[in-house]
This record gives sequence, structure tokens and C-alpha cells, in this order.
Amino acid sequence: MLLANAIGRIQAFNEQEAEAARRHSDQLTKPPGSLGKLEDVACQLAGISGERWPDMERKAVIIMAGDHGVCEEGVSAFPQAVTPQMVLNFLNGGAAVNVLARQAGADVYCVDIGVNAELAHPNLLSRKVMYGTANMAKGAAMTKEQSIRAILTGIEVVDELYEKGYRAFAIGEMGIGNTTASAAITAVLTGLPPEETVGRGTGINDEAWKNKVEVVKRAIAVNAPDALDPFDVLMKLGGVEIAGLVGVIIGAAANSCPVVIDGYISSVAALVASRISDKTKPSMIASHLSYEQGHAKLLKAIGLSPMIHMDMRLGEGTGAVLCFHFIDAALKLMQEMATFESAGVSKA
Amino acid sequence: MLLANAIGRIQAFNEQEAEAARRHSDQLTKPPGSLGKLEDVACQLAGISGERWPDMERKAVIIMAGDHGVCEEGVSAFPQAVTPQMVLNFLNGGAAVNVLARQAGADVYCVDIGVNAELAHPNLLSRKVMYGTANMAKGAAMTKEQSIRAILTGIEVVDELYEKGYRAFAIGEMGIGNTTASAAITAVLTGLPPEETVGRGTGINDEAWKNKVEVVKRAIAVNAPDALDPFDVLMKLGGVEIAGLVGVIIGAAANSCPVVIDGYISSVAALVASRISDKTKPSMIASHLSYEQGHAKLLKAIGLSPMIHMDMRLGEGTGAVLCFHFIDAALKLMQEMATFESAGVSKA
Repeated sequence: MLLANAIGRIQAFNEQEAEAARRHSDQLTKPPGSLGKLEDVACQLAGISGERWPDMERKAVIIMAGDHGVCEEGVSAFPQAVTPQMVLNFLNGGAAVNVLARQAGADVYCVDIGVNAELAHPNLLSRKVMYGTANMAKGAAMTKEQSIRAILTGIEVVDELYEKGYRAFAIGEMGIGNTTASAAITAVLTGLPPEETVGRGTGINDEAWKNKVEVVKRAIAVNAPDALDPFDVLMKLGGVEIAGLVGVIIGAAANSCPVVIDGYISSVAALVASRISDKTKPSMIASHLSYEQGHAKLLKAIGLSPMIHMDMRLGEGTGAVLCFHFIDAALKLMQEMATFESAGVSKA
Repeated sequence: MLLANAIGRIQAFNEQEAEAARRHSDQLTKPPGSLGKLEDVACQLAGISGERWPDMERKAVIIMAGDHGVCEEGVSAFPQAVTPQMVLNFLNGGAAVNVLARQAGADVYCVDIGVNAELAHPNLLSRKVMYGTANMAKGAAMTKEQSIRAILTGIEVVDELYEKGYRAFAIGEMGIGNTTASAAITAVLTGLPPEETVGRGTGINDEAWKNKVEVVKRAIAVNAPDALDPFDVLMKLGGVEIAGLVGVIIGAAANSCPVVIDGYISSVAALVASRISDKTKPSMIASHLSYEQGHAKLLKAIGLSPMIHMDMRLGEGTGAVLCFHFIDAALKLMQEMATFESAGVSKA
């Protein structure tokens, strides 16, 4: 199968190159380890790529967009029409992620994997699996076939971008209602109660939050997903765009490239991907800690530690793209810093 | 007096421009506040500069370098000779801060304000106030005159760089032994016990840490600094380079420019500056949370919240320079993002 094939392509983390990078780092003019996560990232990039000094100049943000049937339960502050409107905003370069990607020297690719509208734009990657998921509060959000097709789509997009020369990826998403799906998946996969995984999303009041918790509980009760089967959880609680991001993560790992995880929804995709195959985990880099409730526990469940604490809660890949500056910084430090010897600096 | 004069030049934070920036931000295609601290920074920059869209293209990192007499108490893992060696490394472009500043489009200025060695280099700003401080464990680190001269030096350097067109500043430092002085100042000004303000610095073992705590306690006992008089604390517990950074902060505020605070030692300078005049506080932007023990409580005492959590503990301004990317990001977002109206996106 294509999915098993992609997972089979994932190379083991190259400990030898990571350790060689660490040894080099310890020769640079600073106390060992004093650059903290910048050093860790440099070593991780060596281990992922299998190259001591990987060239990660070409970077892409992949935004998966899809709609959620659960919106009919009144879980979001924004109408569903905002999903296609924002997709066009991405394609026209006016969204936050576009501004931040330009600044970071990255290109934005937006994939219509499941928007509930007809979309056409020269820059759009049209890979529609469905016109929005079904309402998970009443039954499965996707069929098994749809969820697998979405995962494969994510893998294919990364394969294509890798062919074009991209070597570092960030993930983002757009989908009104997707914090609800994310809260449901997180609750099932981590065992946390929905009260701890349901957040305010784009900004809902107390009453709407209580309703969102109830909807999540109903979705879990109606679908009875098998917590030990990530495919079952993903299919039933959905997010076709979340499934697409699971594919992007698997695809990045299969191509020996780092994939920067964004906020809450992207981290749900990371959790699912890590449960499908823990071989995907070494390729993941956590970017920011979202303001959204539950994100810290979610990252901890995957084993990731975020670098940026900025109370962001926008999605789109905005936090992940900021992290590209740190990937560049980590690689430049390793290659441009003087060593104790070259600079004539005494060691401890 | 020159110092009173500089403090008198500090303009009140322009609430009107900050609020206008916030109103504009709320029109951009994102839920209000969802870009978190990036929005806060954009509004803060408007309030500091008094301009809705300030031009902060030209950025400088100011590194103050000085030696510490307290090194003779064996408080550091590195020999004092490393201070001048690292100054030359900065001037030759081989240190971590040089690499990160180049990446962020910022220029590095290194000031010899108190290195215990003769230094000459075409790029060096030679403003030596003294050849290292006296040993604070035996008496006052500086005379009152020396500490005031150091503060004025910091102000003058900013004034000169402002004249050259720089509009955003980051601070950094180099001085073997300066986490010891910082721990002593923090203990006195915050009331925390030295056991909570003394950290591992560049990397010392348990025994050396215990000695460092004892040295800090002795310095406080010998000097009996007046906790309500920041000048007295600064003069007695020193850091001539810390005094210089206090001046840089006052100078940035006096020129209506933001000043990005680096790690533990820079934050001590920020605490002292805020105690000298709380009019300096609106100009401060916290960058990262250091791995050094005590930094979180120190930032809290000033009222600052860091954006970057990367376990860094190098100093030099390395964390502050990373934050320049976020200043650029904040300003670009405000000017380049589409509005709900221009992009035809529905509001909540």
C-alpha cells in the first residue's frame, strides 16, 4: 500500500551525524550547550537529513483547508463561509501567514483538501477529497477511504514539493470548526477529559464553550472511537485537513526533511502521525505554545517542547513560520561561528 | 545633570497611537488578538515611537564588556582572560551574536567600558571607565563616580547611534563573573535569597555553586547596599558593564526607541533602570527566558513576559537579537495584511 510504502521510506534518525554536529558545536566560542534549543535543533537537522550541514534554504508552508460538518452544532464564532474566503486570502497573499512566510523566505502552498465550496485560483492546489466532513456529533466525520485518501494527499504534496527543491516544511490549516475536531481527537488519544481539551478557538463565550464541550462528548459517545487505533479516531472525529496534515508529516519524514508543527490543530495531526508511526517523531520540530487550552498537554503527550511563547491562536502555520528563523539561525551558527582555537579564546 | 537630563527627555508612552494601532489590528483578517504578543509588540512600538508605523529598519546590538574583581573568589568556570578574547571575537565577527545579528539585519557595536586589559581594534568603541571592578566580596565594586560615568557612557552611545539612524536596540554583555554580580543585585532589589538568584553561569558544579552563593552573601553583608537606592546597589555590587547597559536602556527610552532585553544580566540592568525611573519601562521588550536560575522571577519583578523559551544562557545579546525577527514581523503584519473588508472575509 502507498501509506505503508511511505512509512517504509522513513530513514532512522542519523545519530552519528547528530553527534558529530554536537561535537562541532562544543568547539564553538561559547560554553557547551549555552545556545540551548538552537544547538539541539542544529543537531536534530543533521540527524534528520543525514548531513552535517544540510541546505534548508528552500522552505514551504503547507496549509490544508477543509470544512467541518460539526459547525451545524454552533461551535464556532465565525461562519463556515470564512474557510473558502480565507483560502482566497492565502492565495492572494493577504493573510498573516503570507506576511510571515515572505519575511522568513518561505513559500506558501494552500491545498483545498475538503472545503465545502467550489474554489478556483491559479495558485490553489486542488486536491478535494470531500466537500467538508460529516457532522461528527451524529456519526463518523469521514469514511475510512476518505481519511486514507486525505493522508495520501498530504504525502503526495510533500513528494511534489521535495521534487521542486524544498527541504524544510511547516504545516498550517484553515477550517472553521477545527478546534472542535481537535479537542475530540486529543481527548480520545490522550485520555484527557473534554473540559481540558476544549478551548475558546477563534473566541467564543462561556456558554458557547459549554456547548462545545457537550458536542465533543456527544461525538465521542456516538462514534465510540478505538483510542488504540489512530486511523479509527481520525476517521470518526475528522478533520479532513487534519488527515491531510498527518500525511504531510509522514511525507516530510519519508523525505528526510524537518516539519515544523504549528499550534493546537497541527499538533493534533502530529499526535496522530506519531501514533501511526513513531518513526515520524524525530522529524518534528515544535514551534509555539498556543493560547488554546490543552496545547501544552498535547505537546507533552507527543514529547515536544515549544520554543515560542507568544499567546498566538491563529493557526494557518503562523507560529511554525516564525520558527523558520530559528532553523536558519541554528544552521548559520554551526557554520559561521569561530571555534575556541580559531579565535584564540581560552576554554573552561 | 546629564543623567537627570536624559531621564527628563523620556516622552510618555503614546497611548493614542498604541490604541490606533490596536484598532487597525482588529480590522485585519484574523480573530482579534489571535496573533498574541506580535500584536502587543506592534502596539507597543507605536506607543514608544509615537508613530503608527514606525520605521525600525536600522537595528543595533550594543554589547557592553567589563571585568569583575569578584572573579578572584573563583566564581566562574572560565578565566578572566576570556573577556578581552571574546571582545576581539565580537569585533572580528566570529561570536554567536555576530552570526545572529547578520541574520537579523542588525549591526553589532561592542563597547569596552571596563575590560581589565588594553584593547585596540578599529571596530571597538573604547569608553573605558575602569580596568575591571573591585572585588565586591571585599568592598564596593565601583565608586559612585565610576558607576555614574558608566551609565552616562551608555546613554551617549545610544545618542550617537540614534544620530546614525538606528531606531531599535538590543542589549548584550560580556564579562566573566557577571552572573555573580547579577545574582547579588537581584537578591538585594527583589528580596529573594541568594540561593534563588545564583545560577550555574557558564557552567559550574555543585561545589562551585555553593561557593558562589557564599560570595554573594558576603558581598551583600560587606557592602550593606540600600535596597531602596538603585544607584547604591549598582555601585556596590557592580558590573561596570551592567551600569553601561542601564545607560543604554535610559538612552533608548530618551530617544523614543525600543530596547530589547536579553537574558539574566541584561534583565538586571533593566530592573535597575526601572528602579531609577519607571518611565523607562514602556520602552523595554523582553526577549527570551534564560536557563539561568532566577531569570523568570527577575522578569516578573520588572513586569516583563519573555517570548522565546529556548534554554539559552550565553548572553552577548543572543536572545535579544532573535527577537528582532519578531519586531520586523509585528510591523510587517500591521502594514501588509489584508483587512476583512479588502479581502471580503466575514466577521464573527
